[in-house]
Amino acid sequence: MRLSRYFLPVLKETPSEAQVASHRLMLRAGMIKQSSAGIYSWLPLGFKVLRKLENIVHEEQVRAGHVPMLMPTLQSADLWRESGRYDDYGQEMLRIKDRHDRDMLYGPTNEELITDIFRSHVGSYKDLPLTLYHIQWKFRDEVRPRFGVMRGREFFMKDGYNFDLTKEDALHAYNRHLVSYLRTYERMGLQAIPMRADGGPIGGDYTHEFLVLADTGESEVFYDSAVTDLTFGDRDIDYDNVAQCQSILEEFTSKYARTDETHDEAKFNEIPEERRCVARGIEVGQIFYFGTKYSEAMNAVVQGPDGKQTPVHMGSHGIGVSRLIGAIIEASHDDKGIIWPEGVTPFHCGIVNLKQGDEEADAACDALYKSLTALGLEPLYDDRNERAGGKFATMDLIGLPWRITVGPRGLKNGVIELTSRRTGESEELPPEEAVKRIAEIYAGL
Amino acid sequence: MRLSRYFLPVLKETPSEAQVASHRLMLRAGMIKQSSAGIYSWLPLGFKVLRKLENIVHEEQVRAGHVPMLMPTLQSADLWRESGRYDDYGQEMLRIKDRHDRDMLYGPTNEELITDIFRSHVGSYKDLPLTLYHIQWKFRDEVRPRFGVMRGREFFMKDGYNFDLTKEDALHAYNRHLVSYLRTYERMGLQAIPMRADGGPIGGDYTHEFLVLADTGESEVFYDSAVTDLTFGDRDIDYDNVAQCQSILEEFTSKYARTDETHDEAKFNEIPEERRCVARGIEVGQIFYFGTKYSEAMNAVVQGPDGKQTPVHMGSHGIGVSRLIGAIIEASHDDKGIIWPEGVTPFHCGIVNLKQGDEEADAACDALYKSLTALGLEPLYDDRNERAGGKFATMDLIGLPWRITVGPRGLKNGVIELTSRRTGESEELPPEEAVKRIAEIYAGL
Repeated sequence: MRLSRYFLPVLKETPSEAQVASHRLMLRAGMIKQSSAGIYSWLPLGFKVLRKLENIVHEEQVRAGHVPMLMPTLQSADLWRESGRYDDYGQEMLRIKDRHDRDMLYGPTNEELITDIFRSHVGSYKDLPLTLYHIQWKFRDEVRPRFGVMRGREFFMKDGYNFDLTKEDALHAYNRHLVSYLRTYERMGLQAIPMRADGGPIGGDYTHEFLVLADTGESEVFYDSAVTDLTFGDRDIDYDNVAQCQSILEEFTSKYARTDETHDEAKFNEIPEERRCVARGIEVGQIFYFGTKYSEAMNAVVQGPDGKQTPVHMGSHGIGVSRLIGAIIEASHDDKGIIWPEGVTPFHCGIVNLKQGDEEADAACDALYKSLTALGLEPLYDDRNERAGGKFATMDLIGLPWRITVGPRGLKNGVIELTSRRTGESEELPPEEAVKRIAEIYAGL
Repeated sequence: MRLSRYFLPVLKETPSEAQVASHRLMLRAGMIKQSSAGIYSWLPLGFKVLRKLENIVHEEQVRAGHVPMLMPTLQSADLWRESGRYDDYGQEMLRIKDRHDRDMLYGPTNEELITDIFRSHVGSYKDLPLTLYHIQWKFRDEVRPRFGVMRGREFFMKDGYNFDLTKEDALHAYNRHLVSYLRTYERMGLQAIPMRADGGPIGGDYTHEFLVLADTGESEVFYDSAVTDLTFGDRDIDYDNVAQCQSILEEFTSKYARTDETHDEAKFNEIPEERRCVARGIEVGQIFYFGTKYSEAMNAVVQGPDGKQTPVHMGSHGIGVSRLIGAIIEASHDDKGIIWPEGVTPFHCGIVNLKQGDEEADAACDALYKSLTALGLEPLYDDRNERAGGKFATMDLIGLPWRITVGPRGLKNGVIELTSRRTGESEELPPEEAVKRIAEIYAGL
């Protein structure tokens, strides 16, 4: 993309309404614009990151054997009356009347709707196990939306639902989700720690929240520092392998890691003192096993191998896709701006032309742009007629991990400059070497 | 995908509520499920097609130089009061009050919101031309939703907005959209004819609707049969080339083609009688140039080269993504089911195992599945333990363009059967030849 043809409205001033770094930086980098309280337009740069995260979530869910679909944003109130949650949910549920005065609502979650779909179409244990998921806009009418997309009202979330014949099978689905989530977050450049959590209004005996450590997190968290040494890495996972999924769950959840809701001071004190950590965290996902709560309330039963009708065991599993962008920025920025992890960066690298209009510099930039594009990479080429200082500041603010700087002086020696946003280190090398280097960095991402 | 692990709830009976073929077939093929009047869940097969169409629209818009972003579904009423449309829009607009009793609405279109974004960030002619678009869920509270996703209440639409300094520039944007739409529809296997249309509530002097001919279309259309001979084909388009875009517009719009709203009997009668056609059509897109209507009402001005503030010239351009699926099916089905064009098919081919459990047949199917997948193709493998007749009926219903049938008898002679859904013709050939053939069919799609 050539910047002269893009829409990247960066702000020079820090917006006064933004209290946390991610909110400030998303506004300043021209990623979002508030349209009403807690409701945002995703400007082109923000949308690009959102779409990348959406695609990563899809890829990892499909890899785990889960089946994508899409439920609508608006739901009929009747299903929620059936489960008993219509009255329970309180004012966070946005209630709507249509022109025929029917009670509707903007879905904050989809347990009822998916259970209705399931019971309408599935009648036999032979069709199990089944996990359906979607990534869709949700609405929660927060009293006081804040922190930008981290606590918005309209938000983008992946929610998945497993249907199993037995508790054992459902717990395997639970483990499978935990494993796929670990992999998902790590691809996004995040360490998200599974912590034992509280069921809350959805209910559930087994539940873990995934938290990203950040000073601005809404939850206080207590953990054994050894959990931060765990990495998922490049493991070969067979998601049908019950023992393998179980052992990964144990590896990642056997050490103490809890939010304030489930914190147990006595157990915490059993950890050697030097490993006891108290910090803050941002919740970026949660998995639940809630048994037959909804299937009994809504009569979602299958015929078992014994011929008897039996309610299915269910769980629900969510990843907050839009809020993740806030979490990634909270975890990865400096005083100049955002620092995108390579897995989610909106553009793979920036190209800064130090002397727009100089024949040689323009030609070198064009050639770099073409070589990178031909390799399937997306550069953002700042081809505007601006001062170098302003161009660098914009690139630092929007946080592309790599920047190529092209100027007449370097070109005389046959080199350009390749700069890492994270370390700030620069290296001079021939253009074709820089292209090769960038291609290597992104290979397999 | 193995069918045993998929969720494809096909219906044996024809649902009584469905009046048109596409609605019936989408329900029967397990693509959608109604959740409330005019609101649908997209089951896995339906979602897969929806996502393919979304991707094609994105690719063609980006190719035309238009910039993707995303606006929220819910909007504040204030912006609509500014343009004067809040009161004009009538009961089709779904009006909502949030917990603080603020007036909101579920966006039926986005002229106001995009104009607000534009005026907040753009102040100079130097930032023009600019075309922003998004693909997002919209809501229109139809009195009587019908025809499934063709006239739903919650629907998925691409809407794009161009901002230009002059009328001339804006008309080039108009032409660019027309060209990109022709290409988009043709990639989807559709012939969509641009017809002179009426401005309607959005207003506009220049507007064309794109119509797909189908007996179940909501509009009566009148056209010179010569327009149906035009094809876009594999043209090399430079979207910056004003003359080229203009000449394509002329080529595709100079022959008589109008809906009943703009039909001119006298002009129609000038066409040689044998070429005068009266038929029905489904509207799948519309482009508008409406000048400074919104920019003046909402003060979206830029500083021109002469230093003067001038309201920008705008247009809006829509493609009904979810309704397109209905239109494609109306245009391409037979009494056995859907016939997907190759460009939008949910799976590239089906594999039917005639004797599940037979060692050789299973191995051959597995090998085919792996070879196709390794080439980046997605087969749907019916690995269920069902009768061949039922498997064929399902494949015909869901309409994959190609089917590979594997059975012990053929395997003895080293062959499988490759069948075209469209023609019904079958051919016996070695498995590796079939894989090669299918890869060739989809090359470049």
